[in-house]
Amino acid sequence: MGKERFLIGVDVGGTNVRMGIVTPDGRILKKIEYPTDMSGGSLDMMSELASRLKNIAQGLSEERHPEIRIGIGMAGPVDQKRGVLIAPPNLPDLHEFPLREFLQKEISFPIVIENDANAFTLGEGWMGAARGSLHYCGITLGTGVGGGIVVAGKILHGAEGLGGEVGHMVLIPEGPLCGCGGRGCLEVYASSIGIRRMALEAIERGKGERILKKCGGDSGKVTSEVVFEAASEGDHFAQKIFNEMGRYLGLGLVNLVNLFNPEKIVIGGKVSGAWDYFIESAKAVVQERAMKGQRERVEIVRAECGDDAGILGAGYTALKLE
Amino acid sequence: MGKERFLIGVDVGGTNVRMGIVTPDGRILKKIEYPTDMSGGSLDMMSELASRLKNIAQGLSEERHPEIRIGIGMAGPVDQKRGVLIAPPNLPDLHEFPLREFLQKEISFPIVIENDANAFTLGEGWMGAARGSLHYCGITLGTGVGGGIVVAGKILHGAEGLGGEVGHMVLIPEGPLCGCGGRGCLEVYASSIGIRRMALEAIERGKGERILKKCGGDSGKVTSEVVFEAASEGDHFAQKIFNEMGRYLGLGLVNLVNLFNPEKIVIGGKVSGAWDYFIESAKAVVQERAMKGQRERVEIVRAECGDDAGILGAGYTALKLE
Repeated sequence: MGKERFLIGVDVGGTNVRMGIVTPDGRILKKIEYPTDMSGGSLDMMSELASRLKNIAQGLSEERHPEIRIGIGMAGPVDQKRGVLIAPPNLPDLHEFPLREFLQKEISFPIVIENDANAFTLGEGWMGAARGSLHYCGITLGTGVGGGIVVAGKILHGAEGLGGEVGHMVLIPEGPLCGCGGRGCLEVYASSIGIRRMALEAIERGKGERILKKCGGDSGKVTSEVVFEAASEGDHFAQKIFNEMGRYLGLGLVNLVNLFNPEKIVIGGKVSGAWDYFIESAKAVVQERAMKGQRERVEIVRAECGDDAGILGAGYTALKLE
Repeated sequence: MGKERFLIGVDVGGTNVRMGIVTPDGRILKKIEYPTDMSGGSLDMMSELASRLKNIAQGLSEERHPEIRIGIGMAGPVDQKRGVLIAPPNLPDLHEFPLREFLQKEISFPIVIENDANAFTLGEGWMGAARGSLHYCGITLGTGVGGGIVVAGKILHGAEGLGGEVGHMVLIPEGPLCGCGGRGCLEVYASSIGIRRMALEAIERGKGERILKKCGGDSGKVTSEVVFEAASEGDHFAQKIFNEMGRYLGLGLVNLVNLFNPEKIVIGGKVSGAWDYFIESAKAVVQERAMKGQRERVEIVRAECGDDAGILGAGYTALKLE
């Protein structure tokens, strides 16, 4: 019998860094969470990550002498082979940053780096809503729209680790400008930014009274959360916005269903809190438009692991490290 | 050293059936082609396929005593594991037909069945324009638009072999009705049917004089070939149709580039004969809209194997049979 093994899964978010000690069968034994402190710059933030990781790994090592592996999930494209952050969206001075090399100066245990949406997807496939699936997609509806695609049990990285950009499928070629430089991508409709934009456009047309009222008449204060609150309070107009968002999301799902023939599509992220207000219209579009054969099979399900998905998926990436 | 090995690659098309004896290093030693005879029904056509395959395999076996494997490419979704045609578009009475079982009654050599667009893609990856790539996409622009996606060296089948339906990405949600039941799919723009439709719409608007003239004034005779001829003769209007088709194709390529981060996208099929009239606008859309990182990497190239791609890809599928 081999040595006991533990994984340390890390989810480096814009607001908080979450770490967990994860067992090879997917239980989280211990969690640590601390605010992402950028006041000293991104390199200081990474140094803090290194020293905290070192502490947790050393403590674990001294206590139980296991084999330890570390997986780290971060926003933006990652070159997993080289262990390099290619273009982290919120850390512009860390483009092409060799994170793995940087961390391995302090830490001797094997480290693997993965994109956060891929980590979410793997976490849900390991312990969540896509447990047991070999072919599935994950979508995170947050400030932007992220995604991961699992083909025959493995995440689709593509030639350089840049694959799986589900949020940047083009839905409406002449649609609103997207952060990626394109237009009408899924992200401009199905993200919190998209919800806000749709609400503001409606307010400009003299609609969305309730939403505006909740912001004290200041349209600058409109957020997707406010629209969600209004929808929860029964405001038909706010509900209509989520309904429309669901139809756009549905178009994106149609493409995923036709291209990947997935068993499941798992949807998470903070905007998925409005599930009841968008999922029916999204599913209806899939049943209307996706190909016969694929559309009967696919299950569109809500993520189950919450904030733990990223920790679990990062741990899973480390577990599967070859 | 093991036995000498030969593959028999078969491309079952709507007009002709093509077979070839293929070496494990991708040379075609001998080709046979005969018309797809449906006069006696689809089952008779399959019986002819069985007896011809049996003859060619037996001849080869007696002559050289090699190990023989047979690969067959056919239109429509295929369940490769079970060896079943799920829904061949032109053979409605062969839905759920267990082709492998049917053929193995006559033939003892191992047989594998693959979708024809996947076979095209594998053929181009083995001996054609995507040689050496591990991550690439194939697109066939024909009567419809087919496609195959290769991820880490393997064709993407999805949960039930229905993946890779590149022709049914939605480009324009309110676009023309597609044969799949959806609207505005890539196929309604980038196929010969799409070219014809665009030409007819223009003629209805009083344009496309030259095209109409070439058909003796009978718009019922307009085909994509006529539009291509007109374009080749310098007709700006016909060229504009291909240019527009290229822009739609480009939108589809953007999705492929963002989702798969491919090294290459190989484009073949009869409509690709009009390459010079559509490819620049397609590439321009990719450079305008696809994500930075992915778009610099991807090469969009013309298929190189012509009619042999299907034979080679079917042979390759047999070669890689586990």
